[in-house]
Amino acid sequence: MYTIEELTGLLRKEIDKNSYVESPETLFEPIKYMLQDGGKMIRPLLALIAYNMYSDDISEALTPAIGIEIFHNYTLLHDDVMDDAELRRGRPTVHKKWNVNVAILSGDAAAITAYKCIGLCKDQYLRAAIDNFNQVAMDVCKGQQYDMEFETREYVTTDEYLQMIHLKTAVLLAGCLRHGALIAGAPEEEYQALYNFGCCIGMLFQLQDDYLDVYGDVKTLGKNIGGDILENKKTYMLIKARELADSQDKKELEMWISKKDFNPSEKIKAVKAIYDRVGVPTIVKDILESYSEKSIQILGEIKLPNEKKQPLYRIIRMLEGRRK
Amino acid sequence: MYTIEELTGLLRKEIDKNSYVESPETLFEPIKYMLQDGGKMIRPLLALIAYNMYSDDISEALTPAIGIEIFHNYTLLHDDVMDDAELRRGRPTVHKKWNVNVAILSGDAAAITAYKCIGLCKDQYLRAAIDNFNQVAMDVCKGQQYDMEFETREYVTTDEYLQMIHLKTAVLLAGCLRHGALIAGAPEEEYQALYNFGCCIGMLFQLQDDYLDVYGDVKTLGKNIGGDILENKKTYMLIKARELADSQDKKELEMWISKKDFNPSEKIKAVKAIYDRVGVPTIVKDILESYSEKSIQILGEIKLPNEKKQPLYRIIRMLEGRRK
Repeated sequence: MYTIEELTGLLRKEIDKNSYVESPETLFEPIKYMLQDGGKMIRPLLALIAYNMYSDDISEALTPAIGIEIFHNYTLLHDDVMDDAELRRGRPTVHKKWNVNVAILSGDAAAITAYKCIGLCKDQYLRAAIDNFNQVAMDVCKGQQYDMEFETREYVTTDEYLQMIHLKTAVLLAGCLRHGALIAGAPEEEYQALYNFGCCIGMLFQLQDDYLDVYGDVKTLGKNIGGDILENKKTYMLIKARELADSQDKKELEMWISKKDFNPSEKIKAVKAIYDRVGVPTIVKDILESYSEKSIQILGEIKLPNEKKQPLYRIIRMLEGRRK
Repeated sequence: MYTIEELTGLLRKEIDKNSYVESPETLFEPIKYMLQDGGKMIRPLLALIAYNMYSDDISEALTPAIGIEIFHNYTLLHDDVMDDAELRRGRPTVHKKWNVNVAILSGDAAAITAYKCIGLCKDQYLRAAIDNFNQVAMDVCKGQQYDMEFETREYVTTDEYLQMIHLKTAVLLAGCLRHGALIAGAPEEEYQALYNFGCCIGMLFQLQDDYLDVYGDVKTLGKNIGGDILENKKTYMLIKARELADSQDKKELEMWISKKDFNPSEKIKAVKAIYDRVGVPTIVKDILESYSEKSIQILGEIKLPNEKKQPLYRIIRMLEGRRK
């Protein structure tokens, strides 16, 4: 079995080969640009870990894993156009570095490249692989649709928010695990369990991201905090605070939400203070723990030697560690 | 065997079922809007014709055929954003009726829907079906990339132009025929021959479209003529005219190409007159005939009873008929 570090190294080497690039190269430049930003590649890594739980010959899983990373970057590329984002992981977004047309068309080419890479599995697994990927890709689109719709809605319930991040973020992590396992020949009940496990760690991942956006350390994160508060993003924390705040805090919170002109750091400080009074850190801690426990439970039920599951236990610990 | 009219009727009924629509419906509204514009549905029709050459039970080919039409509309949807087109078949384009974000995201969902529909074939044909579709989808992207690159280039050769329309238009018609035939169990050499046949009629289709844009009848076409001339689109006709015109015509042609302020109908009239002097109508007639002859030759070589090939012979005659 490979360690997480070894798998990351193999992925990096595979990406540097640029073997997915076709002619005309200009169409693939933005994809190369996005893949070479030194991201953590958590999604292809999950695919390789799951694959390696059932097969030692990791070589045939590398291209499908890269396909998943290309798919993920394609969704970011189009999302950045839709959000008109300036920066992605500290570098100009594709539509800022090139233009919107390049971002749309190279994104489209990236989606097809992803399908090409992901289909490179044994014929006997192709149906399940394509079904898995179609469902996941569509769920990501649906999640983005809800995310955009929620922006213009006044209220969003916690269930709606959790469903949105389930679709937009968790399902892809889950699909990576399922893909890796199924193309390695895992039994259906096990690759479905890994999918469910992935949904839990995906929720953990996103809820923690939201939490860190308010309570994180600027230095550790490498980005400014409070962005979601400034945009009134209807996160789990904001929804809970609106629900649970006493009448005075509720009034103050709604005032900050509707205020057009404000001093950014003043707004962040005030909303954070309300979160603190409402007990948001404890509320988030509770839900994170419930997802964490559920993921450990699912993993425990998979009938494989404990040694095979170690990399996934380590992933949980790594995700939990981000909190501190 | 079904007639072309019967197949068109079956397609229309299938589209009206909206069976590809998932929740949230808002994500699929633009796709419904595009599919219900009463287009000729030539692409899914070709898939059904090819399928019907090898199998009578057309029912299982309907969803894949709709998938192809959805794919085609997805490319139009994103192309319209990139070209900032106002109208598509006489109706507002999706990004004008809704907005750019809706067009990007619904287009992405349409692409995935297409993959879902196209994969609905017997497992034994899935590999070939997915390979076919991946290649075709990527070629369409490449064609669009070249098309956009040619806009800002001063010169384009006829070979480059023919390669661009091969990728952007012909390959999809070819892929439809190949898809229909292969999911009906056609032998590989025959579905490849149908692909080659489709490339020829695709070229015929696009070159005739370009020709009609200059020499067509406004009433028959239902759109204004001369659009390509006004945009200096480097069509086969413009490239040939630049190549073959005498020095005075060449000078006049380049003057019209570089002129920023002009009277549209004056420019169309002048460029058309140069085309006439150069003999563009005969040049186009020659190349159309060569593609037409080649398509008939390929069809003749396919070892099927002549009766089975009649709908495709009729398609050639229908395409040729557009000239008159």
